[in-house]
Amino acid sequence: MRILILGGDGYLGWPTAMHLTTKGHDVAVVDNYLRRRLCREVSVEPLFEVPDLHQRCTLWENTSGSRIPVFIGDLTKWEFVEEVFSGFLPEAIVHYAEQPAAPYSMLNRQAAALTLHNNLSVTANLIFAVRKFCPRVHIVKLGTMGEYGTPNIDIEEGWLEVEHKGRHHKFLYPRQASSLYHTTKIMDTDLLWFYVRTWDLRVTDLMQGPVYGLFTDETDNDDRLLPFFNYDEIFGTVLNRFVVQAVTGHPLTVYGKGGQTRGYLNIRDTLSCVRLSLENPAERGELRIFNQFTETFSVNELAKKVQAVGNSMGLGVKIEHVENPRIEAEQHYYNPTHTGLLELGLEPHHLTEDTLSRMIAFVRAHKGKIKNDQIYRKVKWA
Amino acid sequence: MRILILGGDGYLGWPTAMHLTTKGHDVAVVDNYLRRRLCREVSVEPLFEVPDLHQRCTLWENTSGSRIPVFIGDLTKWEFVEEVFSGFLPEAIVHYAEQPAAPYSMLNRQAAALTLHNNLSVTANLIFAVRKFCPRVHIVKLGTMGEYGTPNIDIEEGWLEVEHKGRHHKFLYPRQASSLYHTTKIMDTDLLWFYVRTWDLRVTDLMQGPVYGLFTDETDNDDRLLPFFNYDEIFGTVLNRFVVQAVTGHPLTVYGKGGQTRGYLNIRDTLSCVRLSLENPAERGELRIFNQFTETFSVNELAKKVQAVGNSMGLGVKIEHVENPRIEAEQHYYNPTHTGLLELGLEPHHLTEDTLSRMIAFVRAHKGKIKNDQIYRKVKWA
Repeated sequence: MRILILGGDGYLGWPTAMHLTTKGHDVAVVDNYLRRRLCREVSVEPLFEVPDLHQRCTLWENTSGSRIPVFIGDLTKWEFVEEVFSGFLPEAIVHYAEQPAAPYSMLNRQAAALTLHNNLSVTANLIFAVRKFCPRVHIVKLGTMGEYGTPNIDIEEGWLEVEHKGRHHKFLYPRQASSLYHTTKIMDTDLLWFYVRTWDLRVTDLMQGPVYGLFTDETDNDDRLLPFFNYDEIFGTVLNRFVVQAVTGHPLTVYGKGGQTRGYLNIRDTLSCVRLSLENPAERGELRIFNQFTETFSVNELAKKVQAVGNSMGLGVKIEHVENPRIEAEQHYYNPTHTGLLELGLEPHHLTEDTLSRMIAFVRAHKGKIKNDQIYRKVKWA
Repeated sequence: MRILILGGDGYLGWPTAMHLTTKGHDVAVVDNYLRRRLCREVSVEPLFEVPDLHQRCTLWENTSGSRIPVFIGDLTKWEFVEEVFSGFLPEAIVHYAEQPAAPYSMLNRQAAALTLHNNLSVTANLIFAVRKFCPRVHIVKLGTMGEYGTPNIDIEEGWLEVEHKGRHHKFLYPRQASSLYHTTKIMDTDLLWFYVRTWDLRVTDLMQGPVYGLFTDETDNDDRLLPFFNYDEIFGTVLNRFVVQAVTGHPLTVYGKGGQTRGYLNIRDTLSCVRLSLENPAERGELRIFNQFTETFSVNELAKKVQAVGNSMGLGVKIEHVENPRIEAEQHYYNPTHTGLLELGLEPHHLTEDTLSRMIAFVRAHKGKIKNDQIYRKVKWA
C-alpha cells in the first residue's frame, strides 16, 4: 500500500515509517521539523541527537533496502500540500503532523496560538487535499484519549448511545479535555466528522493514550534509528520522564495526589495499531474510532513501578508529590473501553519489569547527556 | 456598563450597538469590514447601501447624542487586539466577529480556510486579551442553534445529563453541525469551555437560531441606520430571502422536502437577548448557555406564511421545491428547550402578518435595487 506519513520525523512518525516498510508498504514522509524547532526554542533538547530526516532515510535504506521519499515543508501552506500530493499520490495517509505537547500549548499566548493554528490548519488542508487529489484514500488520524477527559461514566469507543426522555440518539462521545493541545484534537475530530458526513471521507481516528518506550524491532541494530527521547516536562511523556528522573536521582515528580489514571501503551503497540488500522481500512463515509491503549495506570502506580525496578538496579528511587501545575481531577472514575484494536489482532506489549529495566539501562548509558535543568521546570496551566 | 462589541458593523452588531446606548450603556465597536469585503468578492451586495461604520456612528451621535468609539482592524492580529483593549477597557464584551455564513464556508477551499482561521483566531485572541487586560469581564458570545444539529432527542439548553450503565455525568450537550461555519462555532464553544474551566472566565454563549427582519426601535426615524439586508443564498437568512423572492415574482426556493425545522427570532429579540444577558451576567468560572429563538418553523411553514401575506398584498407568490444543495435531514425530530432568556425577561416579537407585511412593503419600495442573479445561485455542499 502507498502510505503517506504526515509528521514523519516525530517520536511516533519515524518508527511508524520504518515499521510500515518492513511490512512491505511503500512509504513517504513529510515534516517541517516543527517539533525540533520548538524543543530548541524552549531549550528542552532530547536525550540524544537524532539525524535529520534525509539522513535517517539514507541510514534506513542502507539497512533495509527500503527507500522512503522525504518532503520537507509546512503543511499549513496549501502550495506545499499540493506539491506533496502531486509528488506521491497515496492510498492511505497517517496524520501525526501536529504540535503534540499539552504543556507546550499552555506555555504562553504565542505557543497556544501556534498550536491552534498548526493543528487545525494541517487537518483542514489534509481534508481539502484528499478531496482534490484522492477522495477514496483512507486517513488514519492520531487523536488522544485526552479528548474524553475523565467523565463519571464509562468511556465508550468513540460513540455514546443516549436515552433521554424516552427517546434515543447515538452521539459522537461528548468530549472535554484538560489542555489546549487536547482541545485542538477535539476540534480535529469535529472537523473530520463533519467532512466524513459531507464528503464521504474514510477516516480512522485513534484515541491514543500516553506512549512510552523507544525500542522497536527496526531500531535494534542501529541506535541512530531511534526516535526522539524527550525527558522534560514539556515534550516528554510521563513514564519516559520518570525513567530519567530515576537514573539521575531526581525524585519522581508525581503531580498532586497522583490518582490521575490514564490508558498507556508501548511504542511498539502504536506501530501495530496504526498498521492494523491501515490494513483493515474504514469504509467511505465512515468515521471509525478506536481507543488506543493497552493498560490503565494511575500516576502513583507508574511511579511505584519505576521505583521498584530502579531500586532493583541499585538506583535508590524517591517519589515526591509536587504541586499539580495542571488543572485536572486527581481522583476520578476511569473505565474506558478498548476492544476494537484487539479485535483487529493487536497483541499488546505490557509494561513489564523487563521493559522498564531495558529503558532504565539505556538511559543510564546516556546519563552524561542528561541536563538537570530540563527535568522539572514547573510549567503552570493557570 | 462599558461594552465592547466585536463585529460592530454586522447585521446584528450595528443594531446591538445602537440599542445598548439607548439603554444607557457606553459602547465601542470593532470591525474589519470582512462581511462587506466577502459580499463584494462573491458579488452578493445587500439590498441597499449602508454607510461605513464611522459614518453610522456620526449619524447615530447626531440622532441620539451617544458617541460610539470605532476601532477598524483585524482581530486575528494580536497587535490590533492589544490596541483595542488598551484603548477601551470593557466591563463586558459581545463577540459577533465571525464569518457568519454557512454557504460561504462551503463555497471552496479558500472560503473554508478563511472561515476556520478567522473564527477560531478571533475567539482565541479574545480569550487571551481578557486574560491579560480584564480577567473579570463578562463575554457574551454568539453561538448558533446549528451547533446541536437535529438529534433524535430533545435539545436541552446547553447541557445534557446522561445516565449510562447506572452512572451519571452532565456533559456539554453533544454537538454536530451541518456546515463548516457551524462546525467552527462548535470549536468556539470547545475553546471557551476549556478556558472557562482553566482560567475562570465568565461566558454566556447564546445559541441563536436564524434571525429575520431589519427594523428596530433605533432605526425608525432614519433608514441610513438600518442594518445590512442580504437576500442572496450565501449571506441572506431564509425569511429575508423569501421576502425578496416574493416581491420579485421568483418562486420561494424551498430546499428539498422543506421539513427542515429550526428556531427563529426577530432581530428585535436578538437585541433584547444580548442586553438581558449583559445586564444579568454569568459568574466567574461559568459557561452559561441559552438557546436563543422564540418560535420553531419548518421551511415549508415559513414559505406558506410569506405566500399568504404576499398574496394578500397582491403579489401572487409561488413556492418551488428545488434540489437541496445542503446535506441535511429534510424530515426530523426537533424539540429544543428555550426557557433561560424568557426567565431573564425576554418578551418575544412573534412572526405576525403585520411584521411580514411591513418587511414586504419595505422591500417592495426598494424593488428596483434587487439584482435577480443574486437570488438563487445553487451553492452546493458536496
